[in-house]
Order: sequence, then structure tokens, then C-alpha cells
Amino acid sequence: MAIWSLKPLLSPPFCLTALIFIFLCPKHSHQYHYPLNSLTPSEFTSIRKCVEETYGEASPKLTFHYVGLDEPDKPVVQSWWLQQSVGSTPASPPPRQAYVVVRIDGHTEELWVDLGKGDRASLIAKKVYAGKGYPMFGFKEQDAAGNLPFSYRPFLDSVERRKLNISLVVCTVSSTGWFGEKETKRTLRVLPLYKGGTTNLYMRPIEGITVVVDLDLMEIVRYHDRFRVMIPEAKGTEYRMSKMNPPFGPILKGASMVQRGGPGFHIDGSLVSWANWKFHLGFDSRVGPVISLASVYDPDSGTFRQVLYRAYISELFVPYMDPTEDWYYRTFFDGGESGLGQSSSSLKPHADCPNNAVFLDAYFAWQDGEPVEVKNAMCVFERYAGDVLWRHTEVLLPEQVTEVRPGVSLVVRMVSTVGNYDYIIDWEFKANGVIKFEVGLTGILEVRATNYTHTDQVKNNDDLYGSLLAENIVGTYHDHFLAYHLDLDVDGVRNSLVKEELKTRRVANGSVPRKSYWAVEKMIPRTESEARFRLGQEPSEFVVINPSKRTKIGNNVGYSLVPGQVGSSILAREDYPQIRGAFTDYNLWVTPYNKSEKWVGGRFTDQSRGDDTLATWSSRNRKIENEDIVLWYMLGFHHVPVQEDFPIMPALRTGFELRPANFFERNPTLKVKVTP
Amino acid sequence: MAIWSLKPLLSPPFCLTALIFIFLCPKHSHQYHYPLNSLTPSEFTSIRKCVEETYGEASPKLTFHYVGLDEPDKPVVQSWWLQQSVGSTPASPPPRQAYVVVRIDGHTEELWVDLGKGDRASLIAKKVYAGKGYPMFGFKEQDAAGNLPFSYRPFLDSVERRKLNISLVVCTVSSTGWFGEKETKRTLRVLPLYKGGTTNLYMRPIEGITVVVDLDLMEIVRYHDRFRVMIPEAKGTEYRMSKMNPPFGPILKGASMVQRGGPGFHIDGSLVSWANWKFHLGFDSRVGPVISLASVYDPDSGTFRQVLYRAYISELFVPYMDPTEDWYYRTFFDGGESGLGQSSSSLKPHADCPNNAVFLDAYFAWQDGEPVEVKNAMCVFERYAGDVLWRHTEVLLPEQVTEVRPGVSLVVRMVSTVGNYDYIIDWEFKANGVIKFEVGLTGILEVRATNYTHTDQVKNNDDLYGSLLAENIVGTYHDHFLAYHLDLDVDGVRNSLVKEELKTRRVANGSVPRKSYWAVEKMIPRTESEARFRLGQEPSEFVVINPSKRTKIGNNVGYSLVPGQVGSSILAREDYPQIRGAFTDYNLWVTPYNKSEKWVGGRFTDQSRGDDTLATWSSRNRKIENEDIVLWYMLGFHHVPVQEDFPIMPALRTGFELRPANFFERNPTLKVKVTP
Repeated sequence: MAIWSLKPLLSPPFCLTALIFIFLCPKHSHQYHYPLNSLTPSEFTSIRKCVEETYGEASPKLTFHYVGLDEPDKPVVQSWWLQQSVGSTPASPPPRQAYVVVRIDGHTEELWVDLGKGDRASLIAKKVYAGKGYPMFGFKEQDAAGNLPFSYRPFLDSVERRKLNISLVVCTVSSTGWFGEKETKRTLRVLPLYKGGTTNLYMRPIEGITVVVDLDLMEIVRYHDRFRVMIPEAKGTEYRMSKMNPPFGPILKGASMVQRGGPGFHIDGSLVSWANWKFHLGFDSRVGPVISLASVYDPDSGTFRQVLYRAYISELFVPYMDPTEDWYYRTFFDGGESGLGQSSSSLKPHADCPNNAVFLDAYFAWQDGEPVEVKNAMCVFERYAGDVLWRHTEVLLPEQVTEVRPGVSLVVRMVSTVGNYDYIIDWEFKANGVIKFEVGLTGILEVRATNYTHTDQVKNNDDLYGSLLAENIVGTYHDHFLAYHLDLDVDGVRNSLVKEELKTRRVANGSVPRKSYWAVEKMIPRTESEARFRLGQEPSEFVVINPSKRTKIGNNVGYSLVPGQVGSSILAREDYPQIRGAFTDYNLWVTPYNKSEKWVGGRFTDQSRGDDTLATWSSRNRKIENEDIVLWYMLGFHHVPVQEDFPIMPALRTGFELRPANFFERNPTLKVKVTP
Repeated sequence: MAIWSLKPLLSPPFCLTALIFIFLCPKHSHQYHYPLNSLTPSEFTSIRKCVEETYGEASPKLTFHYVGLDEPDKPVVQSWWLQQSVGSTPASPPPRQAYVVVRIDGHTEELWVDLGKGDRASLIAKKVYAGKGYPMFGFKEQDAAGNLPFSYRPFLDSVERRKLNISLVVCTVSSTGWFGEKETKRTLRVLPLYKGGTTNLYMRPIEGITVVVDLDLMEIVRYHDRFRVMIPEAKGTEYRMSKMNPPFGPILKGASMVQRGGPGFHIDGSLVSWANWKFHLGFDSRVGPVISLASVYDPDSGTFRQVLYRAYISELFVPYMDPTEDWYYRTFFDGGESGLGQSSSSLKPHADCPNNAVFLDAYFAWQDGEPVEVKNAMCVFERYAGDVLWRHTEVLLPEQVTEVRPGVSLVVRMVSTVGNYDYIIDWEFKANGVIKFEVGLTGILEVRATNYTHTDQVKNNDDLYGSLLAENIVGTYHDHFLAYHLDLDVDGVRNSLVKEELKTRRVANGSVPRKSYWAVEKMIPRTESEARFRLGQEPSEFVVINPSKRTKIGNNVGYSLVPGQVGSSILAREDYPQIRGAFTDYNLWVTPYNKSEKWVGGRFTDQSRGDDTLATWSSRNRKIENEDIVLWYMLGFHHVPVQEDFPIMPALRTGFELRPANFFERNPTLKVKVTP
């Protein structure tokens, strides 16, 4: 059954609904979509039943912290994919299993559940997790923790002392991080905010109060009220249109995309096809969208060729740079702690996505194990930004020739709202074989209240740990590191990374009066230790090649990684947040495929100790030449806030590309046709 | 009079022509557009007359190599702008003058012509240029040089020896560069190509023949036929749709932009206004589009505030990396040698620009001084790529709040086709105050013919100086450096550059268990030598501030430069091409405003010797703190060709941004309204 319910959303005046349906009316997902499909609502329910039966009596105390597809081993999926792609149905359908993480009686347990047998799920294995770190937070326990202060006398006194109206206080929560403690409990910090007169309560933090909640006891285990700071005014912090007063502006004339020929993409269950691309689109509560089995059509061979086996955002590390008591611990791992998928926002038609978008719902397990639906969790649309695919004007010929091909592309989008921040996550497929990974950072800054109302009052700027954005508001310096898991299979499973270094050469003999030029020196890392790179230091390119596949004229087929803005971690290597986020020690890593290596911050990221990160995996120094390799790219971003980010941030977009490099025999869009 | 003739081009089914006209029907450009307007056809003609009268008898031998606006000194324009912006008409209109470069009797002369007095132009000054280097090439002389071989016996013999059909030979030309010669003549290299069976003659070079033409004598002064190389087949090189055979594909469903509210921009003469932006759009035969007096509306002050006084692409340096006899000299300066403006291609409606674009014609002086019109030389359109200006979903409140603002922007586009290469040059203005500078590189590669048909035949890859792209075709390694002239006036003329370095700090006292964080250290270069930067080496930001203007809370108003991919020159510093292109020694430079410092490769770039480059200007080490400063940003790009670039290159887009940094009191799009 198709896990997506499709809702074409079009601007009224150009209602192509009928047309859209011809293209997009969901079919029952075929057998061959099966093994990588995300869990369905009924599967979530049967998993819950199975798990609860397993624990019997104990089950009331049971909470679910991750329920996701435990995809079959790659070789299984690959051989199945191969069979179905040649039209034959596999003898036995690949196994379908789920991986489940629960908390019970104050400890973490992992379960593997089989879904193969119709509606009934059955337990395969179960094990108590004895290691360090804790699973993702559930929304229910976060709410519960945030409510505790309202029945906690010392907190009520603190609010009273500040002459605040308790009914206007809202509490949000923060992970506590790990800073060398030998023993830890599963805790959350509670951060009080003040909503009086604004939606933008993040701009009105109540500083000076420390509240630590033990999640297993679900009670406040630490409380301090150390100092008071002026709470920023509500004035000027609102962003809802309904609350705005004239004058308005700038006025933008909106635009609708009209495709008289109808949309160019087709969604069948979880399989998306568009122009020369097809791929599987999944959803996971932890990482959000998952692109699998992306392959592109080769006009020369007349076949679809593999590019990407599986890609997703493995982790999102957001360390703040304020080392004071109530801030130093703010070193968030939005993937492993909050879940990018379960934090996804319902997309707004005609705003989050253009009028020609199709929306897809998604599901994840609530703390009680029951499926929750996120309406419009993802959208798929064709983008035409007025760009040119290729062009040339030839003036050397008597008949002047001008040939131009406009560029249309396909975008898959999700927005993950982790508390104050909104991440617009785009995956863009282009007809020239390029896959562009882009993220837009927007939403609300995490700010600190201060008594300063003017920079002249600030003696030492270093004491701000950020930028003064408005009276009494400091936008704290911070980073965003998105760790992309890129399991490329360039025209096959066994690939190698080639580093092409552009090196200055001297003109040897005086044959010509010129003295220098540059040449390409290729370096192929053989093991993981040779494949850790800081980018932007020297002119070089990175290409993933298939050593056993060559073009007709003998070039190894490949795909190159084209970095965008590069941001590396500036924290001290031996600092605790950096040990936990050691995957940001480099911008680019290569590891051999290992199904268990999914989350660069570790399986249990909350209060993790860095013993299960990409850095530890990579330290095994395995062979990566002519192997099934995975690239890990860190999209890094340092944020020095500016007043323009107040009270809500204009989206900052940044990204990178995978680009064919001798993958095709020639420009794959040479014969492209763009229908009016 | 408006120099642009406007031709709204819309897709038939949504004909808004009437509407468009209300918005775009060209008015006579008001007096206040006057001083920066590009030269008009009648002005070109009166300049020609004036110059010919000056030389009298000699004039038949006279050729024009540059005729452009010699804009008034900045203070004059500034004070005039100030007056007109408050509505008062300046006592005396600013002077209107032209700068002219001619060749006569084998030498270069510069003339300054006054245009103030109605239709009659009068000579102000005239001087023989005694320095090194030569002016831009004219198309007439390039054609003439390319025709010489056809009446040159040795060349005809060479063609015969190669058993080629002379009627299929086409000759293109190349600048000769400078490689330490004491004495130089004004010469061109002639490069023979073979068009048999294809439009794509660049893919069929006839190698081994050296032809050097003296342009003053207009005769071949050097000729060698040193070796023969297989000429690549025509097969597979064609790119015209009319010559393609099925199967076609990929098939893209085209899209039209429909703005029911009509376009959001307005063009009055040379003044473009859109949303919260207004700027002057000019055109120059050497640099192409010129953006002047760009200012953005500040909702807090209720006024337009200056951002950019004048911006354009000062030079485009394209060195190739093949040091052999017939290639080493290929180190092109497409601005100073060929002229980005006079090389502009007529834009194709619905292809080069989307259906909602408005097209503008441009003019430049032919070698005889008469104006030539380039139809559709530039286009202006609103881009909606489905992007989000800002958004947030607030889950902490009982009533879930989601606010999203879609992003529409304004694009000014020109395509400059310099021989084989097409540069798509975009200037994008965004409502959030961002100006994005982007270039798309497409067209045809410059390739070398080779006898190799397979990489296995290549003993030493270093001998290729490029990549084998097809049988007998090598795509030569090369660079593109676009040098942007960015004369920022951030809220006024006197600005300073601030380098913000992000530095690791240690947590001093053991107050918290965390060990490190980062802080911002500001460095303000005082002189030019302190303001030369290689980007991407360390985490830092660059902000141009106005030291005497602050926000209400005391931050200096500023605009930050956000680099994209950074590419620095890899040539040896002491190599001749690098001496001439010394402006690529760094990615970012700052100089004080100096009207005469326009072209970073020098006024006379052909065979220049590096005595008049940005590097020499900067070596004067002038004060740049709290001065009227100019930023020079190098958009650099190394090209290792791949088979996908054959036979025509998919556009590679890259760029950078200017972004407000405490320029506004708050997000300037907080009250943005997007009309349906």
C-alpha cells in the first residue's frame, strides 16, 4: 500500500486538478517498492502490539523512542532491485523488519521486529543497551518536563519575585549535553520564556533560573535562581501578519508556475520518476527524508544507471558559543536528540512550496508506539527559476546560430522545525545529472536576555558571546553542521574516491616563453585515514569513480562532489561537545559501507561520549579503494547574528552538489526537449 | 531620451501586454537620469563626427576601439543625486562626456569629448598613448585578419596537403598575449577550424599551423606549418535541435511564470525600481551591464539608503594550461581584449529569460564609430523559484502558528559570448536586502585535436594538458576569473572594511565544565596592503561598515560580502600571464575610490605588461579606513573538463552575495506582502 496520500494543490485560476490526477493518482505501491518503504500506520500499530506483548505486565511503563525501518542488508536490496528492474519477481521478497528503541524501568532496550508475516509483527531479537548515551526524546516527556515548574514552589516564587504573570510563562526544554560526568541520568534542562504580547516567546527568555529534570523520575532534581535580567519587551518581536500594522512592505508580486503540459513527475507509491531520474523517497522519524536507489537515464546505453544508493542527513550539530552557566551545555544534536523527521512541520501550500507542488504525508511513532500523521510533511515540485541548462551563440558562421535550453528541475522539500529553528531541506534533481543538496536556515534565533540596551554600554565585547540585536537581546554565536550520508553507487557498488590536486608546473625546456601552468595529480586514498579532508585549503576536486567501468574512450565513470561554502568546527578538539561531534573534525570522510553506521553522532546521541561517532568508525582505518564506499559531507555554517535576523531570520541558503564527471559519454541533455 | 527600447515578451495564453504597458511603457528619461546614462545612438554619431573632424584628412585610416561614457566624478554625481532625490533640480546639470580610444597611423590615441551642448559634440582633450599594450579589438579587423589566410598561398598549400576542402575552413582569431618581448606589434593569432558537417567548428580545430597577423599592416607576418594532427570527426559534435535525430530526451515540462497582479518592477529610462530596490542600469561595450546608485528602502527610516555606487565586471581572465607552441599564449582577457559588452548576444525570449522577462536593447560603437544595436542585449525579470523568504512554525503555543513568506526576486541578465564561451551574467536583487552576483558558464569548450582516440594510448597524462573528451578531442585545462568592481557606499560614501575572524577561546576559570567556544575578533585594515585577502583559509567574515552611522542600539551599519566557491590563480607569480593578471593574486582587494581605476587588467590590456593592474594601484598602499572604498572580488573557477562538457557545456553556475549586516534595524521583510 502506498504510504503517501497525495493531495495536488494548485492555484484556483489554473486548476489542473483533473490533469494532475492522471499523472499522480496514487497506485498501490507495487511489490518492488517494498523493502525500503517507510513503515506504514498499520505496521506501526502491529509493532506496538508486538512490543507490548513482549513486556506484558511492564508495558504501562514502556515508552517508545524510535521506531523505524530496519532496511535489509544492501546486497539483498541490490539483488532484488536488479531482478525487479529486469522485470522478474524475486523468488522470496526481501525481509521486512523494524528497529525499535524503548525505555523501560530506567533503562534503554533495542528490539528487532519482523514484519514479513502479514499484519502480525513478531519479535526477532531484544537486547538491553548497556552503553553510554540515551535515545531520542519523545514529545510527551518533553511536555511533561516543561510542565513541572508550574507546580514547583521555588519556581513559582522566582516568577513572583520577578513580578511576572505565571499564566504568561511558557517552558521549553533543552538537552543537557555531556561534559565529562562519570555517571549520568537521563535529564533535560527547562528554559522559561515569557509570551506576554507576542508569539515570539524565544525573544523573551527569563534568565538566571536553572531547572534540571530527571526524565525517569519525571521530577525536578536541580534548581537555582541565581540572578535576574531584564526581560526583553514584546514590542517589535511579533511576526504574525495578523498582528502587523501598516505601513506594509516591501510588496512582492506573487507568481504562479503554470505547466500547460501538466507536471513532469510521477509518483507511484514511494517511487518518484521525473525526466531522466527515478528514486525512492522514504521518511524516517530521526533523519527525515531518505532518498534511495537514485538512478539516471543514460541516452547512450538506453538504460538507467545507479548513482546513489541511500542519502539522508545523518546528524545536525548545533553548538552555541556562550560558556556561561545557563548556556554552556547548549550543544544540540537535532537528529539524535530531537529527530529531524518527527520535528517536520506541515508545509503550507503556495508558501512553503509553490502552487505546482504535490504534498506527501508522513508517519512516526508517538511515545506510546501509535502512529502520528504529519500532514504535508514533504512536497515535490518542478522548479523553473529562469535558469539556462546550456546555450551558445555562434557568430563565426554566416547564418548566426543561437541554441538555448531552459532548465527545469525537480525538488523534494521538507521543513524540520526544531524548537526555534526551521530547516528547509531541499533535494534537487537536474536533467544534466546533477543532484543539488541545499538547506535554508530560518526561524527564530536562540537569544539571551541582557540588561544592555546599547553597544556603548558593553565594556568588553567578549562578554556578550554574541551580537546585540535589539534592546536587551543578544543573538548568541553558534554553528550549524549538517552531516550528509551519501552512499554513492556510481554505476555499481564498488567505487573509489579520487582526489584531483591542481598543481603548478614549470615549463621545463625553454621551448616557449611561458613559465608555468597547472596539471592534475590524482590521489586515490586506500584506507579511511587517507580519506579525511578539510576543504578549501588547496585547489582540488573530489570524484567518486567506478574503477571497473569506463567510457568508450577510457575515462573512469564518476561523479564529483562540488562543495559550497565550507565551515569547519572551531571548538578545541579535546572539548566535550567536539568529542561528541567529532564528525566535524573534517569536511569530508569516506568509510566502507556498514549497515550499522548510520548516525554520525552515535546511535544514542543524548549525552553520548563520542565512543560511537564517524571518527571512531573511521579510526578502524578500513579499506576504501574499490569498495562499497560511503561519503560523509559536512555542510558547515558559522552564524554571527545580525539585526536583520531579528525578530525572525531571513532564510540563509547554502548547499553542495553531486555532478557527473565522465559518467556520461557526452552532455546528457544534448537532445533535451522542453515542451511549452 | 531613454536608451532602452522595451519589448514586453509574454507567452500568448496569458497576454498581459496591456497591463505591462501601463507599467513599462518607456517614458522619456528625466533630466535626473542624465549623468550616468549610457551613450545614445545619436551621441555615438555626434562623437564620430567630432572625432573625424579632429583628424580631418587622416580620418579614413581612423578606427574606433572604445567609445563609452566618461561618467562625471563621483562627488559631482553624488551631490546631483542628493539634490534630485529631494526633488530639487540641480543648478547646472552635471557634465556629460565621452571617453574615446582610436587607432590611427599605427598608434593609439585617447580623446575626451564633451556632449553637454545639445547634438553637437566638442573635443575637450586628445592625447597620444605612449605606454605599453593596445586597445580592444574591433570586429572588423578580427574578420579581416581571419580572412587573410584564404588568399595566402602557404596556407592554401597546408590545407591542400591535409586534403581538406578550403570552402569548409573557417578561421577564428586569438590574442597573442605578452611573454617578455621588448618590442611588440599589434598582432593576432589566426586559428583555422573545419566546419564540415557541423555547426560546432570549435570541436574541429586544424592543429599545427601558426599564423600571426600584424593588424596595422593587416598582413600575415609569421607562418609555420609544423605538424599534422587528425581532425576530429563532425559526428556527435552538433548541438542544433534541427539536426538531431530521435530518440530525444530527457523531456522537460516547461513552465510559465504568471503574475496575475502584473509585473512588480518598473523601468523609467535607465532607472529600474522593484519592491524595495531602485538602481540605474547602464551598458558599456567593454564591461557590459553597469549597476549604479543601487539603494534599498528602509521601512524604519522611511527612506531609500545607498548600498552600491557602481558595480560591474571589470575584467575576465581566462588562462589555458597547455604550454605547447600553438597554445601557450592563450591567456585571454575577455574584457579588455574582446569587450564583454560588445560581445553580448541577443537574448532568446522564453529560453535565455523566462516568459515574464522584459528585454532591453543596447548600443556600442563599431570600428567606424557608428552605433550598432544589440537587440535584447539584457533582460529584467522576476524570479520565483519556490524559495522561502522566511518561515517559522511555533509549537510551544496552544494555537499552533505557522507563518511563511515566499521569496520573489528581481534578476538583470546579460549573456556575453566571447568566441566559444557563453557567460550568463546575473544580478539578482532580493527583498531582504541581498544582492546576488552569479555567472553561468556555458557554450563550447576550447579543445585541442589529438591523435589519441582512447586514454589507454596516453603514456603520460601530463602530455594531454587536459581531458580526453571524445575521439581525437582534448578539453584543455583552464581557469575563469571574473573580477568584480564593487564600489559600495554603505549608507554614505565613507566606509571601512572589517575582517571578523572567528577565533577559538578557552574557558578560563573552571566555572563550567566546557573547555572552548569561539569569539569574533575584528580587524580593520588601514591601508591597501592590509586589505588583500585569500579566502577560505580560516573562518572569517568580511563586512563593509559605515564608521559614522550606527543603528539605534549602536551597531555600525554594514553590508557583508558572502563568498561562494573560491578559486585562486595557480600560475607562478612571476609568469607573464600572472603578471598581467596580477589582480588574481588575491580573492579580495580594497582600494580607495579613484575614477581612473576601472579596469583591473589595465586600460590597454592587449599585450599589457602588468604596469597598470589592480596590483600596481594597490601597491601605492593608500589609506582605506573611513574612506570612499572600492571592493574587488575575484570569482575564480578552475575547469577540469569532463565528457559531459562535450559537445556543449551544461551551465556551471557560481556566485557570491552582498548581504545586509546590521544595515537595517530589523528584518526588512517583516511586513512583506506577497500579492497573489
